[in-house]
Formats: sequence, C-alpha cells, structure tokens
Amino acid sequence: MTRLLPKKFQTPMIIVNFKTYSEATGRKAVELAKKAEKASNESSVFIGVAPQFADIVVVAKAVGIPVFAQHIDPIKPGSYTGHVLAESMKEAGAVGTLINHSERQLKLSDISEVIGLARENGLISVVCANNPNISVAVATLKPDIIAIEPPELIGTGIPVSKAKPEVVTDTIKLVRKVNPTVTILCGAGISHGDDVAVALKLGTQGVLVASGIVKAKDQYRVLREFAKATKQ
Amino acid sequence: MTRLLPKKFQTPMIIVNFKTYSEATGRKAVELAKKAEKASNESSVFIGVAPQFADIVVVAKAVGIPVFAQHIDPIKPGSYTGHVLAESMKEAGAVGTLINHSERQLKLSDISEVIGLARENGLISVVCANNPNISVAVATLKPDIIAIEPPELIGTGIPVSKAKPEVVTDTIKLVRKVNPTVTILCGAGISHGDDVAVALKLGTQGVLVASGIVKAKDQYRVLREFAKATKQ
Amino acid sequence: MTRLLPKKFQTPMIIVNFKTYSEATGRKAVELAKKAEKASNESSVFIGVAPQFADIVVVAKAVGIPVFAQHIDPIKPGSYTGHVLAESMKEAGAVGTLINHSERQLKLSDISEVIGLARENGLISVVCANNPNISVAVATLKPDIIAIEPPELIGTGIPVSKAKPEVVTDTIKLVRKVNPTVTILCGAGISHGDDVAVALKLGTQGVLVASGIVKAKDQYRVLREFAKATKQ
Amino acid sequence: MTRLLPKKFQTPMIIVNFKTYSEATGRKAVELAKKAEKASNESSVFIGVAPQFADIVVVAKAVGIPVFAQHIDPIKPGSYTGHVLAESMKEAGAVGTLINHSERQLKLSDISEVIGLARENGLISVVCANNPNISVAVATLKPDIIAIEPPELIGTGIPVSKAKPEVVTDTIKLVRKVNPTVTILCGAGISHGDDVAVALKLGTQGVLVASGIVKAKDQYRVLREFAKATKQ
Repeated sequence: MTRLLPKKFQTPMIIVNFKTYSEATGRKAVELAKKAEKASNESSVFIGVAPQFADIVVVAKAVGIPVFAQHIDPIKPGSYTGHVLAESMKEAGAVGTLINHSERQLKLSDISEVIGLARENGLISVVCANNPNISVAVATLKPDIIAIEPPELIGTGIPVSKAKPEVVTDTIKLVRKVNPTVTILCGAGISHGDDVAVALKLGTQGVLVASGIVKAKDQYRVLREFAKATKQ
Repeated sequence: MTRLLPKKFQTPMIIVNFKTYSEATGRKAVELAKKAEKASNESSVFIGVAPQFADIVVVAKAVGIPVFAQHIDPIKPGSYTGHVLAESMKEAGAVGTLINHSERQLKLSDISEVIGLARENGLISVVCANNPNISVAVATLKPDIIAIEPPELIGTGIPVSKAKPEVVTDTIKLVRKVNPTVTILCGAGISHGDDVAVALKLGTQGVLVASGIVKAKDQYRVLREFAKATKQ
Repeated sequence: MTRLLPKKFQTPMIIVNFKTYSEATGRKAVELAKKAEKASNESSVFIGVAPQFADIVVVAKAVGIPVFAQHIDPIKPGSYTGHVLAESMKEAGAVGTLINHSERQLKLSDISEVIGLARENGLISVVCANNPNISVAVATLKPDIIAIEPPELIGTGIPVSKAKPEVVTDTIKLVRKVNPTVTILCGAGISHGDDVAVALKLGTQGVLVASGIVKAKDQYRVLREFAKATKQ
Repeated sequence: MTRLLPKKFQTPMIIVNFKTYSEATGRKAVELAKKAEKASNESSVFIGVAPQFADIVVVAKAVGIPVFAQHIDPIKPGSYTGHVLAESMKEAGAVGTLINHSERQLKLSDISEVIGLARENGLISVVCANNPNISVAVATLKPDIIAIEPPELIGTGIPVSKAKPEVVTDTIKLVRKVNPTVTILCGAGISHGDDVAVALKLGTQGVLVASGIVKAKDQYRVLREFAKATKQ
C-alpha cells in the first residue's frame, strides 16, 4: 500500500528544488530556506526545500520546514566512493528525497530500489515523471509523492494556467487508476501564483518548483504569492 | 604546468577515504575526523579526510585538518538537480576532491574538465588511476595529485610491502616521464604501517587509504601507526 | 491498447538470447539459428532467436524463424555514432527487439521511448523486468511481450520447476491487473524441458532462455526438448 | 610501442563515419560504401568506411575498402546482452573500430581496455579526442590512430581551412611529444576539399569525416574531391 504522508506533510504543498543554482548554494541556500520558512509560517502553507547535498545539514539546522535531498543512490552502506547514501541524507536532516528528476534520471530497477531505500530510512519519496506513461509506471511503484511533468508544460514554456486542462487532468486520471492514494504534484509550468492555483484546481495537491522561485528577483515575495495562491 | 601543492599540503601525506561506510557516516564521520586530527597533530604528519558530501560542512567545522570531497561533477552552476558542484564543495569547506575513484569512474573528457573545475575553484585535484597506462594518461592531464592503484595490489589483496617493488616503481617511472612534478600517492595495498613505509620507500609521496583505517577496531591506533610509519 | 501479436507470433513461444557468447557469435550464430529453425519446423513450436547486432543480417537470411535484436537505443536517425537504430535493426531483418535486459538496463523514460520506437518501426517489443514491482511498471507501458524474471529464480539458481509456484503466479496476477492482454514470458530459471512445462502451466506463454541452450553440449537436442515440453 | 599500421593502411587516409544517418543505413550504407570504393580505386587514395553494426557484414562483402566499427564495448565473450563484442566486429569483416567518439564517450579505463581488445583481435584502433589535453592523454595509451577534434573546429563550425593553423599544429606538437609514431587524423572542420588539403598540410595524416560526405547531395562527387585534395 502507498504509505499515507505523515500529518506534517499536509497538502497543498510547495517543494522548492534549489538545483545547483548559484543563487541557492551554500550561504545563499540557507537564506532562501529562511525566506521559505517565513512564507510558510505566515501562511500556514506547507513549503519544503531541496538544497544540494552539502547544504542539507546547515539548512536543516537553520529552519524548521522540511528539507529534501535532490537524489539518493541505489546503495546500502559500503564501498561506494562519491555516491549518495540514504542513511547519510537522513542523518543530515532530510525528511525525504527527490528521485528520478529529469536532470538525474535513473534506470527503472534503480527507481524501484531507491523508493524502497527511502522507505526503510524513513524518507518521503518524491518521484518525478516526465510524461503520462511514465507517471503511470511510477505510480505502480508506490512512491509517497509523484511529481508529474506534462511534456506540454516542459519543452514549450507554456504555464499550466494557460494550457489545456486535459494536459494535467488526463495524467491524474491515469495515475489514479493504478494508485488512488499517492500525492500528486505538478512539476512543470509553474512560474506565477496563477499557475499554482490552477494546478491545484485541476486536481494536483501541490507543486514542485525551481527557477520560478530561486531565480526570482524577490524570492520571498514570490514564495508568499505561491503560498497565498494555494488558498484560492 | 602542474601546480605545486600549497605549503600546507606537505608530503608525505595520508588521505583517508570514508567511502559510504556506516562507520564513517554522519556523527561517526566527525568522530573519525577528530581521531585523524589528533594523530596528525601528535605526529606532525599530514592527514586529510574525504567524508561523504553531506558530512563535509560538519567535519570541516570540527577539525583543522584538510577535508576532501569524494567526487565532483563536470558542471557549472545551473540546472543540474542531484549533481555535485565544485562551488558547493568549496563553500562547504573542502580543500580538494578525489576524482575518478575506481568506484566512481568518469569519461576521459570529464576527468579533464573536472580537473579544470577544481583548479578554478581552488580545490586540490586527487585523480585515481587503476593501472599503469591510465596513470600515465592521467598524469598528462596535470592534476595536483595522482593516486596510483597497481592492479597487482587491488584484485589480489597483496599488500604493497609484500609485492614486487617493480609493481610500484615502474608506474612511478612512467608517470615521471610525462609529469616530473605531480605528487604521487599509493592508492592500493595499504593495510598496515609497513605498507605505508614501503610505499614511501618505493618513491610515492603518500597513501590513499579507506577500509584499513575506517574498518579498524581501533581507528586511532592505526592512524597513529600509519603516521609513524611515514617517518621510517 | 496493447497491440495483439501478429499471427505468426503464436504462443507458446521460446526466444533464445544469444548474448555475446562465443558459442553464438558470427558463423556459430548462424549454425545455432539453423538448429532452432529445425527444432521449430519439426515441432511447429514458435522459436525466435536474438543474435548480436552484426549477426542479424546473416541469421535473418539463413533462417525463416523470427530474429530479434538484443537492444535498441532511444534514438531517431541522426548523429549518434556507435548507437543502435531501430530502423537499422528492422532493415537488417529483425522482427522485434529485447529491451531492458538485466545486462542492458535502461532509464525508465528510455524504456518508454524505445517501446514507442519499436512500434513505429514494426518491431515487436520484449521488455525484461527483474522483479514483480518492475514487471507491473513495465506492463503499464504496454509492450507487446514482457519477460518476467522473479528474483528467486535469478540469484539463487533455483529452476522454476522446483520453486514455489507463487513466485511466478503472483507476478502474473499483478501484471494482469494493469494489462490483461500482454504476452508474458518466464525469463529466468529455465534449464530443462521440465522448467518450460512448469513455466507454461503456471500461466506464462513462453520462455526467454540463453545459456540453457547456447551453452548446451548438444544445442539441437535441448531445443527439441524445450519445444516438446511446450506441449505437455 | 605503437604498432605501425599494416601497409594497406597507407596514409593519407580518409575515414567516413556513417553515424546513424538514414542516408547511410542498410541498403544505403552499401551504396555509399560502393561510391567510396570507386573514389578510392580511381584515385588510389585510402578511403575507409564506418557503417552501423548491423551493416558491417553486408558492406564488407560488397566492397574491398576497409570497414570500421563505430564502437566496441570493453567486454570479452560472455553474458553481455546488447553489447558490442570485438570478436563479433572482426568476424563481421571490420578491420578496425572507432573508439570514444564524442557521441559515444567512454570512461578512461574503458578506453584503455578497448584499445587492448582491439589489438588482441587484430582491429585497428581509431580513438577520438575532443580537445588537446585529451588528445595527449589518449596518445599515451598508444592507439593505432588518433582523431583530433580541436574545439575551435567543432562548436563553432569554422572549417580547418579558415582556422588559425595553431589550432591543429599545437595539438600535433603535444601529441608527438608523448607518441612520435601514432597516425593523426583531423576529426573536425572538414567540409570541402580545401579542408582536407589544409588538414594534411598542417601535419595530420588524414581526416575523419561524416556529414560532409554522408549528407552531400552528390556523395560520390565529394568523395572524389576529398581524395583529390589529399594530393595537393
């Protein structure tokens, strides 16, 4: 069975992927996480952050909001120089991890293994899927959260608020057939508050965003706008 | 030109690779790094440590000895979710990085690029090479340090102190032909103090070790033994 | 919809993976394919062969039984030196292709893309899946054929005829829930005629075998034994 | 020692990489190879062709000019479904193989291993290197032929005949320091006969070309022009 998210993982949720942007590395990762915490506290909306591996410890100490790793490797403790261990992410303070982001895709068998490793280590799994077929396949692997990225919203730069609703609703429908309880995030096409509001109206339970927030001139203002939009 | 190591990178040197061993993850990484620092301070021998990505910040704060990353990716800041950025390792407190460890091998063009990225970010590059031909090829790329791993010392479990001397001296000779100044470490066959002493006598300037120290019952005792052996 | 197999892909079916065995390379690939054809003709049982890329043309000319590629890359015609093009396999004479064999695993998104490329080029897709979760995920991608490899039959060397029946029947049940029409092969634990018979009794529609036939002293005798066993 | 090329590998040489272009797949691969053979016979200039794996057998039967594989994997005969075996390429009729093409790059240790496998199987190794540093590293591995691809001639589209001569001569000088006898081809910036002539004048012993010939309206005319240009 798909594990239900712990209470503190209330939806709607916003997860901010820091990628390897210089605006969200090291000291700046902590600053951005603090802005996210402030926006979360003021709005009572769930906002999580996914900084780089080396920044997890410091970010997790600096803020009370949930911290995610960006990736873990399909390994157990042992001889794996340069790899990312679930146990290490957990001890560093992560509560979950992104898996199979389009910039860090995995073999199918590794996705399956990493979801299991996350579970064994008490980490929430957020698996990314970059088309409807893949979303369904991923949903059968029973991750905690799936971030769907309709191709119409990636390649083209069309925001979800301007796209045909079917682009999102069709994927949700397919995913729900094989997995009625998984939490679904919209993982593409999110640049403005409107996009967040529409993504939720179409049936997702939150958004996974990156540049829309990290690259914003005023990161805090956009975070607040996104949080507010979840209540429309 | 091969950059000469900064003064504080005095040789002989010992670098301890923590891999993803549970005995050297998180809190235990800090404990092991403190033992290494103690052994280094008492002996005035250079000992560096290479913990996992998430542990670099905490280890670098806890100890004064040099901290190395285990790997960096051939990327600049940008959209590379789940990758390891040189800038991030630097800001976390690393002074250098392992590259092309046999458990994390890179394409040739990526080794070349990562050596350049390390240099641009003020990180010492320690490139691993698992046979004589590869050692020579790596040496032409002008890393700061090369860790040679003669196959006779890897697959077979033969310690360097029991191996034919030519196994090491031949590789050194070949490397020196194309790169007279690179620092050369022995990266295999090191389990006891004797191995350290012999590795240095054969012409290397230090050792790269992992399980010999991390998996030891008394890590500190072995660290001290290794440090002492560098003075024989 | 899952495409129904063309008539000539009658079940039960036996597909022989030649891997890169020296006993099935070049001239020997043709010899083995001829034995498979003979066993197929004599028994009227469907036997397909999957030789190496370079051998497809010659094998497809030498025999009338179906020839499969062992892999295709997720590419369209263009600048992909050293890659395997669906169009090339088709023109060489292949009628289908293995995909995601445990020795040549793909990223999830590539499996999805390659199934599509196979279909566009009129190639039957045979996707391998090395545990029940992965089998279900693969089944949602609607390949023509799925080769299930229960872990109890891979790592352990237990033949399917000696294993607990649930090992196979549970996977079939899970696959059928998401894909009622896909052809299912047993892709592990097949060494003797008995294994073939049991695999079919448990509900699979055929077997994918390799060393059991390629490495046999008398390949023809074993092929005949396997063909006969499909009729028990 | 670098093995000297067999007599029939006379220089100057032209090797045509067919990539996975539709203009050079299957039946069209044979047609193009025949044009290359005609141009070679008429001019007495060495022209080799590198078709896709599945086309090697047919091309090698259709023409007398040397046929190269585009890639081989670092494997010996065994359980490597979907991989490319040196033995298979040899038996199919290849006399050599491209290695580490920029579209099919290898780990450093695999380049070293594949050069060895080529040699053991009597295949000429043509290793590609996409910048001067990498060219030198590759040269130390003693392949038979190295195809240098100066970055100024790749990214920018500048033909070698219009580039600063140093772009090529500097790389040659560096390569010659570590390997005085390796055959050097110019692997980028070749579109017209002039480029071939200049590449040779600058000190290379031939060219590796792809689209310049494969995509030409009149492939034979361009082949003849290239062959002629080697004599200027």
